[in-house]
Formats: sequence, structure tokens, C-alpha cells
Amino acid sequence: MAGTDASARPVLGGPAVILVAPQLGQNIGAAARAMLNFGLTELRLVNPRDGWPNEEARAMASRADPVLDGARVYPGIAEALADLHLVVATSARRRDMAKPLWSPARAAVALRQAEAAGQATGLLFGGERAGLDNDDIARAQAVVEVPANPAFASLNLAQAVLLMGYEWFQAGAPELGPEAGLTLSPPATAAELDNFMRRLEAALDAAGFFRPPEKRPIMRRALLNVFARARLGEQELRTLHGVLSALLREPPDGTAT
Amino acid sequence: MAGTDASARPVLGGPAVILVAPQLGQNIGAAARAMLNFGLTELRLVNPRDGWPNEEARAMASRADPVLDGARVYPGIAEALADLHLVVATSARRRDMAKPLWSPARAAVALRQAEAAGQATGLLFGGERAGLDNDDIARAQAVVEVPANPAFASLNLAQAVLLMGYEWFQAGAPELGPEAGLTLSPPATAAELDNFMRRLEAALDAAGFFRPPEKRPIMRRALLNVFARARLGEQELRTLHGVLSALLREPPDGTAT
Repeated sequence: MAGTDASARPVLGGPAVILVAPQLGQNIGAAARAMLNFGLTELRLVNPRDGWPNEEARAMASRADPVLDGARVYPGIAEALADLHLVVATSARRRDMAKPLWSPARAAVALRQAEAAGQATGLLFGGERAGLDNDDIARAQAVVEVPANPAFASLNLAQAVLLMGYEWFQAGAPELGPEAGLTLSPPATAAELDNFMRRLEAALDAAGFFRPPEKRPIMRRALLNVFARARLGEQELRTLHGVLSALLREPPDGTAT
Repeated sequence: MAGTDASARPVLGGPAVILVAPQLGQNIGAAARAMLNFGLTELRLVNPRDGWPNEEARAMASRADPVLDGARVYPGIAEALADLHLVVATSARRRDMAKPLWSPARAAVALRQAEAAGQATGLLFGGERAGLDNDDIARAQAVVEVPANPAFASLNLAQAVLLMGYEWFQAGAPELGPEAGLTLSPPATAAELDNFMRRLEAALDAAGFFRPPEKRPIMRRALLNVFARARLGEQELRTLHGVLSALLREPPDGTAT
């Protein structure tokens, strides 16, 4: 499927990723893997240094071969962008370019909105050494800057692709709620926790734990705080009952099984 | 500086990155580069397969050598986490683990909050083949899941490190305002734009552009919308005056220079 056909093709699966004069096949392959990690499938290569197809790209793609198989090669950036309505250029350094400068997250929202309106979109990346030149960037509607360590801001090409794919995917993915991961086992009720705390307190009493006696409310509250904050499940509470029984060398408590 | 010293050391520059049983030196090197891209400097290696130091790691680190130089090697995960207060484990697949499941962004905020409270924090990553096992994850306070293409969700180790570093950095970086990138040249005033529009309209009038005459308000408004939306700078407006003068074969308009 590699070729120089610049005719319009509907962009499915998010923005096209356009790599301008990429140098290393391994970076193209890693970029393809990163794309597919986040559901991007359309790869466009402008004048790749080592030609196309490229075996080093395939070795790095790690089962993202369909992205490489579908990649198209263009002789120039104008041809590679011809059918796109919204192009966002990535740039490692801030330049005077009189163009909106977006965060990756803001760019992702803009791309999603454009897609929803039926527009074809693209993410433009420069080659490893020099990035995009000013004439390339002038073709884009906006520039995206990845916030990074100012002392070491140069991202690997594939990693820049990864971050943009990640933000694009996130902009359409449901947010994990604050309770995610916590509902895997039925939670214990407050009464069940109280029951356990009574057993524990009685055992601690018998062991002479609450000394001096006037500290009992504070000590009891401290223990309750620990177990309440843990948001115990029913099964976990049964386990704790078992632990207590074992420590007391008692048969398991009937009320908790 | 590599060694097995597990004594407490203050974690500067964000969460420690703990790689459990990493296999490929090149992934350790790429992870170090990704760390430094986002200001993370503390790398901890639990039982790296090919020993330490590792020349392949250095070859991939691309000037992130200080991170590798400071890396410490631990015989087990318990030693690697010993001084940390908040550990977030990364996992490619969702598991029943009765532990909060955070998005990368939520984890980043939690890490920043813990750091602000003086706590030592860490991000825990498994090896390339198997990831973290359930006993590793049980040590963490929360699990982070990177939202990704369900059909191709396996991230490269260094890219998982990159995403977490990116989110951590972002959680402390100032947001780019909506006007970022647009204030690079002094903007034109509304009066200056009006002046240009009057010149343009007069020229178009002379050329018989406004036909039929009753459409003039609509056509004029369409043109004004275009130039207003472009948010022209003073210099850009001078350039447009020059364009108009050239097309009209007039000397440049005195009011706009």
C-alpha cells in the first residue's frame, strides 16, 4: 500500500500522523506502534531519508504492521497535507510565528471537534535532527508545544507521536471516576465494621491494651479511623475476623462468616 | 553511584521511577531520557536482567547520563520502596485488586500533593515481558491505568515512563492560556482594520465587485469576518495594505505605513 498517491482518502481513526523527512527507520516503527496504542492508523511519510518500505521500521513496530502497511509516501509536504482541513504542527521550541500555541490536551480537543464536524485532521512532526522548518509550520493552523524540562526538552520523535496520540485518545475516552477500582468486592456495611470493632476492642480490653483508661476514646477512635479509611470489603472484613480469632486462639466468630 | 544502598535519600525532582526486573538496556536508557525530559531524576532498578551498569542503556540515554549515573540497584522490590510514602503502580491490564484505579493525570495530582506534604513518592513499573505481578502491586497505594486502544494496549516500557513523567510535569506546569502564541506582534486596532477595509471596499467598488448592489452588506460582512478572525498584527496589516497597493498598481497607502 505504500505509494505516492496523494488523492483524498477519508481519515478514519483520528488525525493522520505526518512525519516530514524522518531519518531512522526504527523511529518510524516506534511511531507506528505508538500510534496504534492510541488508535491512530493513518501514517504519511514525506521524503523518508532511507526510502520506503524500511525493514528497521518493521522490526520496531511490534505488531503494529498494519499501520506501516498502510503508510503512504509523499514527495513534499504540500502533497501530504492536501486533503486535510486542520493541521497541528508540533514544535520543540517556541518561535515567533503568530499562530495559536496549544497544549497537547487543547490540541486534542480541537482535533476531536474538527473530526466531529467531518473535517480531516493531521498532526505534523519534523525529522529527528532539525524538526519542522518555519515554512512547514506556516502551513499549520496551530502549533502544539509539549511542556517539558527546559534543560532537556528534546523528545524522541516516536515519543512525541506517543504523547499526541495519548492526548487524542484521552479526549475521547471516558474519565475514570474517583471510585474506579474500589468496587471490585462488595463493601462491608458500617454495622459489620462496628461488629468487628467491638470484637477487637473487647480483645484489647482483655489484654490490658487501653492504658491509661482515660485514653481509651482516643485510642479506639484511632483504630476505627484506620479501618474506616481502608473501606473494607465484606470478604476483607471476614479475613480480619479470622485474623483476630487466630490471634486469640478462638474458633472463628460466628457472626462474621 | 550504582549500588545497593537502600538507605533513605531525599527524593528531589519528583517521584522515583522504579523498574522491576527490566530486561533490555535500551529500554532503561530510553526510560532515563524520558524521565529527564520531564524533570524526573531518581531511577531505581530492581534486579535488572543484564546487570548494571549497562552499555546499551547508555547508548539510548541521549545525554540523560546523569540519570543513569545516579541509578541505584536493589536486590528486591521491598528494598527499592523502603523509604517511600506513596507508591503508584502502573498496570497494562485491569485486575481485581481492591485498590484505587487512577488515570495518569489523577495519579500526577496525587503525587504532587504528597510531595507538597513532604512525602517521598515513587512510580512502579514492571519488566517488558510480564509487567508487575500481583504481589508487587499489592505494595502500592494505588494503581494507574493508561487509557489506550483496547486492541493494542501494550506500551513500551520507556513510553509508559514517558507518559507518567509527562503527566507529573504537567500537573506542576502553568497551563498555556488561550492567547498563547498570539501576542508575538502588536495587534492592529479596530480602527486600523476599518481603515484597511475601507480601502479594500473602495477598490472592490471600483472593480464592480459588489453585484447585485443589495448584496453589498453581506459580502462586506463576509470579508470583514475573515480579517477580524485572523486577529491581524500591525505589521501584517501593513503587509496587506502593500498587497492591495500592488494589486491596484498604486504607491503604498500613506496612512498605513
